[in-house]
Amino acid sequence: MSSCWGNQIKLTIFGESHGTAIGGVIDGLPPGLTIDFDEVGFQMKRRAPGQHQWSTHRHETDEWELLSGMFQGKTTGTPLAFQIRNRDQKSKAYAELNIVPRPSHADFTGNVRYHGYQDYRGGGHFSGRLTAPLVFAGAVARQVLATKNIQIGGHIRTIGTLSDTRFNPIDPASHLFREVALKQFPVIDDTAGDQMKALIESARKDCDSVGGTVEAAIIGVPAGIGSPIFDALESSMASILFAIPAVKGVSFGDGFDITTLRGSQANDQYDQMDDQRNLTTSSNHNGGILGGITSGMPILLNVAFKPTASIAKPQQSINMRTGEQTKLIVKGRHDPCIVPRAVPVVEAAMAFSLLDSICQIKGLEYWS
Amino acid sequence: MSSCWGNQIKLTIFGESHGTAIGGVIDGLPPGLTIDFDEVGFQMKRRAPGQHQWSTHRHETDEWELLSGMFQGKTTGTPLAFQIRNRDQKSKAYAELNIVPRPSHADFTGNVRYHGYQDYRGGGHFSGRLTAPLVFAGAVARQVLATKNIQIGGHIRTIGTLSDTRFNPIDPASHLFREVALKQFPVIDDTAGDQMKALIESARKDCDSVGGTVEAAIIGVPAGIGSPIFDALESSMASILFAIPAVKGVSFGDGFDITTLRGSQANDQYDQMDDQRNLTTSSNHNGGILGGITSGMPILLNVAFKPTASIAKPQQSINMRTGEQTKLIVKGRHDPCIVPRAVPVVEAAMAFSLLDSICQIKGLEYWS
Amino acid sequence: MSSCWGNQIKLTIFGESHGTAIGGVIDGLPPGLTIDFDEVGFQMKRRAPGQHQWSTHRHETDEWELLSGMFQGKTTGTPLAFQIRNRDQKSKAYAELNIVPRPSHADFTGNVRYHGYQDYRGGGHFSGRLTAPLVFAGAVARQVLATKNIQIGGHIRTIGTLSDTRFNPIDPASHLFREVALKQFPVIDDTAGDQMKALIESARKDCDSVGGTVEAAIIGVPAGIGSPIFDALESSMASILFAIPAVKGVSFGDGFDITTLRGSQANDQYDQMDDQRNLTTSSNHNGGILGGITSGMPILLNVAFKPTASIAKPQQSINMRTGEQTKLIVKGRHDPCIVPRAVPVVEAAMAFSLLDSICQIKGLEYWS
Amino acid sequence: MSSCWGNQIKLTIFGESHGTAIGGVIDGLPPGLTIDFDEVGFQMKRRAPGQHQWSTHRHETDEWELLSGMFQGKTTGTPLAFQIRNRDQKSKAYAELNIVPRPSHADFTGNVRYHGYQDYRGGGHFSGRLTAPLVFAGAVARQVLATKNIQIGGHIRTIGTLSDTRFNPIDPASHLFREVALKQFPVIDDTAGDQMKALIESARKDCDSVGGTVEAAIIGVPAGIGSPIFDALESSMASILFAIPAVKGVSFGDGFDITTLRGSQANDQYDQMDDQRNLTTSSNHNGGILGGITSGMPILLNVAFKPTASIAKPQQSINMRTGEQTKLIVKGRHDPCIVPRAVPVVEAAMAFSLLDSICQIKGLEYWS
Repeated sequence: MSSCWGNQIKLTIFGESHGTAIGGVIDGLPPGLTIDFDEVGFQMKRRAPGQHQWSTHRHETDEWELLSGMFQGKTTGTPLAFQIRNRDQKSKAYAELNIVPRPSHADFTGNVRYHGYQDYRGGGHFSGRLTAPLVFAGAVARQVLATKNIQIGGHIRTIGTLSDTRFNPIDPASHLFREVALKQFPVIDDTAGDQMKALIESARKDCDSVGGTVEAAIIGVPAGIGSPIFDALESSMASILFAIPAVKGVSFGDGFDITTLRGSQANDQYDQMDDQRNLTTSSNHNGGILGGITSGMPILLNVAFKPTASIAKPQQSINMRTGEQTKLIVKGRHDPCIVPRAVPVVEAAMAFSLLDSICQIKGLEYWS
Repeated sequence: MSSCWGNQIKLTIFGESHGTAIGGVIDGLPPGLTIDFDEVGFQMKRRAPGQHQWSTHRHETDEWELLSGMFQGKTTGTPLAFQIRNRDQKSKAYAELNIVPRPSHADFTGNVRYHGYQDYRGGGHFSGRLTAPLVFAGAVARQVLATKNIQIGGHIRTIGTLSDTRFNPIDPASHLFREVALKQFPVIDDTAGDQMKALIESARKDCDSVGGTVEAAIIGVPAGIGSPIFDALESSMASILFAIPAVKGVSFGDGFDITTLRGSQANDQYDQMDDQRNLTTSSNHNGGILGGITSGMPILLNVAFKPTASIAKPQQSINMRTGEQTKLIVKGRHDPCIVPRAVPVVEAAMAFSLLDSICQIKGLEYWS
Repeated sequence: MSSCWGNQIKLTIFGESHGTAIGGVIDGLPPGLTIDFDEVGFQMKRRAPGQHQWSTHRHETDEWELLSGMFQGKTTGTPLAFQIRNRDQKSKAYAELNIVPRPSHADFTGNVRYHGYQDYRGGGHFSGRLTAPLVFAGAVARQVLATKNIQIGGHIRTIGTLSDTRFNPIDPASHLFREVALKQFPVIDDTAGDQMKALIESARKDCDSVGGTVEAAIIGVPAGIGSPIFDALESSMASILFAIPAVKGVSFGDGFDITTLRGSQANDQYDQMDDQRNLTTSSNHNGGILGGITSGMPILLNVAFKPTASIAKPQQSINMRTGEQTKLIVKGRHDPCIVPRAVPVVEAAMAFSLLDSICQIKGLEYWS
Repeated sequence: MSSCWGNQIKLTIFGESHGTAIGGVIDGLPPGLTIDFDEVGFQMKRRAPGQHQWSTHRHETDEWELLSGMFQGKTTGTPLAFQIRNRDQKSKAYAELNIVPRPSHADFTGNVRYHGYQDYRGGGHFSGRLTAPLVFAGAVARQVLATKNIQIGGHIRTIGTLSDTRFNPIDPASHLFREVALKQFPVIDDTAGDQMKALIESARKDCDSVGGTVEAAIIGVPAGIGSPIFDALESSMASILFAIPAVKGVSFGDGFDITTLRGSQANDQYDQMDDQRNLTTSSNHNGGILGGITSGMPILLNVAFKPTASIAKPQQSINMRTGEQTKLIVKGRHDPCIVPRAVPVVEAAMAFSLLDSICQIKGLEYWS
């Protein structure tokens, strides 16, 4: 684990927000696949900062360079490495973070963990910018999955107490996946979206921030992926989802809401068997996973993001050199809400995780 | 991963509910530790079935036998293996599970994953009984942690819509840990507990079941444990928590509730630095983890358990041989609510996970 | 790693020579396989002590008990655990090993590693007895491999300076595998074997010991197994072979002898392509592995075993309490040469390693 | 594993010989270390091609660029990534390798493994050029080790049947390490070296190649590093050494020669205990490792390299499209003997492996 994730398909991520470059290495991809890099670029752009009013004003183009792993337009099967050069750093804004830690950031914990030697500029290796390599890897992974008609989509489910329409748990309607992904503000219901945008703008004006949740789904997953106990698909998917900065909760199916149901309400009863002997259920409270193994029903999950920790309001902190209390005003460019840009990150993590799990059961040759 | 978990301290779990034995192997323990096996027995008994009205009537004594790893009353540092023989099996009650799968159980997904060859009796390797080895391992791990004054406690936070008092997030009051653990029904507020018991009893009478959440805390954790990105403590802890059957959600600190706060409310502001240069915060919405790394504040988390899948009410299912719909009445002995017995399981998973993470940073010799 | 080995198929080994039991857990086996346990017993007996003049007089029957993972006569696919109870311990003979370490044993290094808390009786977790679980696991693995006509054989290649006939590197003649395995003294050429036995007996009379090498081969391996760089089949196979006590060298194909050839002699030139587009070579100096990947030619390797460290001759050692030099006479029952019993251990390690590597490329479903 | 190696300190390697760049990511380094990059450059230059008569004429400068992991002149502790751009590619020379495979190269096995999609130019990901990132990582690792006075050295032990003087196994005389490393032809005895050079030159003139062995040593290793069974230091060190192209054998201490000794000759008898209660032995046939754990005596090992597979002599091969036999003359620039350049690669692999093993026992904080 550490900065390397996966069993059969591994992702190694490197870089700091204001260092030379960030990037990643994807190891174990099936050989011979065509990757549509325009589509990769589309996914990268969904996450990129500086595009909208509610996102940070940092203008990173997130242009990547492939370093290895593609040959004659196809994956080689050997490690696919890529880098994204950092360009628009304004490091001076961050100089004191290793002395006066920002509340709810990793400044203090990173300082302890790395004995003060971590690159603290812009959050360094802890920066949300490190989700760019994850989105890149996920964009590759979802193209592999698509060769078997496995599709992934997500949307903002809530911002503060405002809610979007939910996916239909039985049939999340894959046309929605693309429609929502193409929107600047990825919600199903644009009216709800307008209210959310107003809420974010209001927080921004108050020098404050808001949080929210992302709902995401995968359809077309074959039954039988995952294993009981420690290799539960929920275990591996939660593991990579909690790697995304600001995530404080992950749930599958009805999640915490299932705790208020009775068994007779929560159980997904079987109602049909198809030609391939797959069973379907008339409800999907379990989110497509039973005993850690996919059932063939849509995978459904929710991820909770805390409000952006960086706010311009004065906050209480401590000068770690002197031990004295001090007021801190976080400078720099920050999203008042990171949830809109988090949607493609969640999808990417899910794609990479599922690809790894499928490869463990089906082997590399499943894709060829 | 798979049935083996951990990086520096590994736990391998084996067995089926109605097979010869279940058990585990703990590899990488520090040598020279005294283990109080009465205390291990106490933890095992907290999880054991058959003790209370709301738990299954199966009478497993959960007596273990140590096979290796202890010598002259101390851990050797080499693998500590143990087995728990299965005794009170009534396998006939389960004979048809591989034909007509129980809703919300792993009967169907296990059948697909293992091509019908899994031991389906009593859920086999998917059974909640497999949490006994986890509790055993956790009971050992928490004794290692206790040598550094790290303590773990949990309680039933909710059953259905009924709530217990929460831990104080700044100071969960470790005396509560033991007090609650000694209760037959592990809540802080016994009045709330009585209402919960009544709710469970009511579900049982209706041939139904209820779910709930467990809140748990760890205090005394040094700052600096965990790593950014894929080795976030939340990632590893969620990974092992989702290995517990029936878990559908895991959250840290305020969890999903944090999404409704503004940054100025959710941020934990620093208010003091102690002699060891540790900072403390005046709130703990983040549950003691920032950037995947412990801050030294209490670790706080919540785990959602779905209602027991096994209910005596008739349910719709499919005969997998014929494809025909059929009514299923789940026989056997089952808890109408597994949350009370899940509390020590959650604590055990947390203990094992934290021990592994500490060893990665501090090394084995930290404990000697 | 540690006491757990493998990526897709994992083996966890536990136990001490004079503890309660030794055993193992095999995780990730394909489901639905019939295992011939008489054949497992045959492999176990090849390794067992006490059968011959040249082996230790300890009479362990090595009777195992299955704890999980088999159901209705087939593998379930979930962890297969087994234990072997220790019976014929004479622990008093070992009491001073933690004070006066035996030369070339792990007494001193184990004492440092485990701070003196290791179970030192009979070598504890370091004992050659811990190869019994490996042979068990290998006996299962080779039966999985046999379903695809992959076969493994080995023989004593040398004892001291005496040599057996070598396998033909192009065609190791699989009928030899069984013939040799059935012999009490596993050589191809029994005349050479008689000389070896005389050499061992002579060493025994001198209260001394001798070493030797094992040559082993695998035939029927599909081309394309393994990966470049760190997942080279040689890397993983060497990793598990060096886990066998007393191994000091591992080589593939011509091994160290290849260093004295010129490229024009050492290169295996291609001479044919078969119907499945597999190439064959007219020589096999590389032992069936190129770039870490199988070529389809027989895998050939050699393993060097040092002379048994336990000898009855007086040796120089140090009393670790006082720091004084002292003469040590190793008591207990020991083989004057462990090479004959090491042959099935080498084969077992190869089988397990190859099975794991095949599963990584082909997936679990390859076997069903 | 795969293209990622290590438990606590991980190395991920990427790239193809004629792709855009090769490089690596080192994860888990202790923070706060100063790295002397002139010294890294020195190690890189020892491995670099094009410097001598006996090495390939390819002129790669092996200039690297750091992408992350260093800040203000010190390691951050987060992933240290680096790239080495490929410059002097002459890819046309390799165009037919995917049709007519070179004997003893990975052309055929790579083709099968990657279904023909591997980058075959110059060996692609299988190229010896991929040892450059390993040397880089080893150069960093050896500087970490040096903070605890752990030093590594190697030399050409044999070329063909010609031998250099061996290291003294009790005291390899660390001054030799630097002296030999500074030589263009890394031997202890320059007279032997001259003969070896003549042998290599003679092979080159014959359009042929020669092999040889590297002997290497590590001194200053604390006792107690490594673990029994699967985490034996020999297991992990052999695993990474077999990742080096052309390695066909790895042995520790006396290696295969120990098989011709009697126990009374091979056993390393204890003769002294020092102030820190470390024991020393009067011989070192075991190469400083007993039971998989370091004894504190020098680690000694030998690695066998086959003759360079690329020779200009005509060889028999097969056209994989037609199945017809064909004569092949390998073009391109190749070393007639890769052993001189392999010495720093062996040292690098040992350094990285030992660093990982020490961190597992001692923890990251050992170095701070």
